[in-house]
Amino acid sequence: FAGEVALVGAGPGDPGLLTLRALRALQNADVVLYDRLVSDEVLDLARRDAERIYVGKASGNHHVSQEDTNALLVKLAKAGKRVCRLKGGDPFIFGRGGEELEALAAAGIRFEVVPGVTAAAGCAAYAGIPLTHRDHAQALTFVTGHCKGESDNVDWAALSRPGHTVVFYMGLSQLETIVARLREHGAPGTRAAALIEHGTRPTQRVVTATLEDLVHKAAEANVASPALLIVGEVTRLHDTLHWFNARA
Amino acid sequence: FAGEVALVGAGPGDPGLLTLRALRALQNADVVLYDRLVSDEVLDLARRDAERIYVGKASGNHHVSQEDTNALLVKLAKAGKRVCRLKGGDPFIFGRGGEELEALAAAGIRFEVVPGVTAAAGCAAYAGIPLTHRDHAQALTFVTGHCKGESDNVDWAALSRPGHTVVFYMGLSQLETIVARLREHGAPGTRAAALIEHGTRPTQRVVTATLEDLVHKAAEANVASPALLIVGEVTRLHDTLHWFNARA
Repeated sequence: FAGEVALVGAGPGDPGLLTLRALRALQNADVVLYDRLVSDEVLDLARRDAERIYVGKASGNHHVSQEDTNALLVKLAKAGKRVCRLKGGDPFIFGRGGEELEALAAAGIRFEVVPGVTAAAGCAAYAGIPLTHRDHAQALTFVTGHCKGESDNVDWAALSRPGHTVVFYMGLSQLETIVARLREHGAPGTRAAALIEHGTRPTQRVVTATLEDLVHKAAEANVASPALLIVGEVTRLHDTLHWFNARA
Repeated sequence: FAGEVALVGAGPGDPGLLTLRALRALQNADVVLYDRLVSDEVLDLARRDAERIYVGKASGNHHVSQEDTNALLVKLAKAGKRVCRLKGGDPFIFGRGGEELEALAAAGIRFEVVPGVTAAAGCAAYAGIPLTHRDHAQALTFVTGHCKGESDNVDWAALSRPGHTVVFYMGLSQLETIVARLREHGAPGTRAAALIEHGTRPTQRVVTATLEDLVHKAAEANVASPALLIVGEVTRLHDTLHWFNARA
């Protein structure tokens, strides 16, 4: 039997946001390789006897490199294993899924891809924030605020303009820089924004602000990673449309 | 019993891409209101005795207005019905879900939102096209190419720049205009693009091209709606990473 790899999006956290196909891939797998952003409840849906291998980053410490993960996937599949490569959100949106598939393709391994609910869609839905809206946002941009080097490639002038929504994945650690760059490129201090901590989880918190007081409010509320930052006037709709944890 | 509304993303077409929560909402509903982009296989997962109401556009003909849909949702919930409002893809990404919820909130109706796999994520996964990639695309923008009026709000200069991926929802009818605007704003004729017809469905077709020959190739292949347009160098990875319908 030739092994194979399913590259699977686990969604934003709530196990109810797993797709039917993702559930099938999990229950079919001999081995599950998973990242830091995959929730325990999702992982619990794998077969009891499946091997579980953590390949995510341990913040600050050394971690499994992308090359090591690629090599492990190839090795397991060549050993005949059915491998589920489980990533938080969607594997093709800031998931480096493409790089892993290139390694599999080069080694002649069979694979399939199961898309997932990306963090932006999940957090926005559970926070009551429409990402596009005829009155406020006709376009939607996703960027990663994770790494200093990467954020220098960002087109800040375009992101600063009105009439669209910008979502920063993993933006919390760079929050001050992000706000400063947007302001430098013309975004007004009154532009609305929201930080969503633990999006879609029972512990979800939403902090709404403007660019002027966002850094202060985030510090005051002690917002912690993982958190998603949404910048745009649509975030004002949270006041009217919030429904999840509505009693909190 | 007070009625309630679940605003649910049905995903891009493949019923296997429905989330567990979406399935539960469908099976819980007395009434299902659905759009044109919801597939028959997904609709078949509703209860046998549930009322099904089509509120989508009939191409060219008159259709149910957004205001009528809003009013119908309020009326059904007030009559005590459990309503599932089912939209293709994700309800907050070009789904006008926000407008429907504003009407529900104003009427004091209880609601929840179930995010879905948006068309871009679904089509990209099944076409083997990573939407972001460290080497090719550090950001990702979604715009709608559906309506002439709306596309005039588009920041064409930003979309034309290299180093990111742009996805046009419903871009087929405006394909010539989209390509012309990108070229006018500096995108080279060699920039890669892909059109995905019937994404995630057994009938899926992928046409890869460059901006120079995209319009010609789309006409030659007789690509029909619904189709998603992806512009960016990542689309070149389809050649290496395609896996779905791989025998076709």
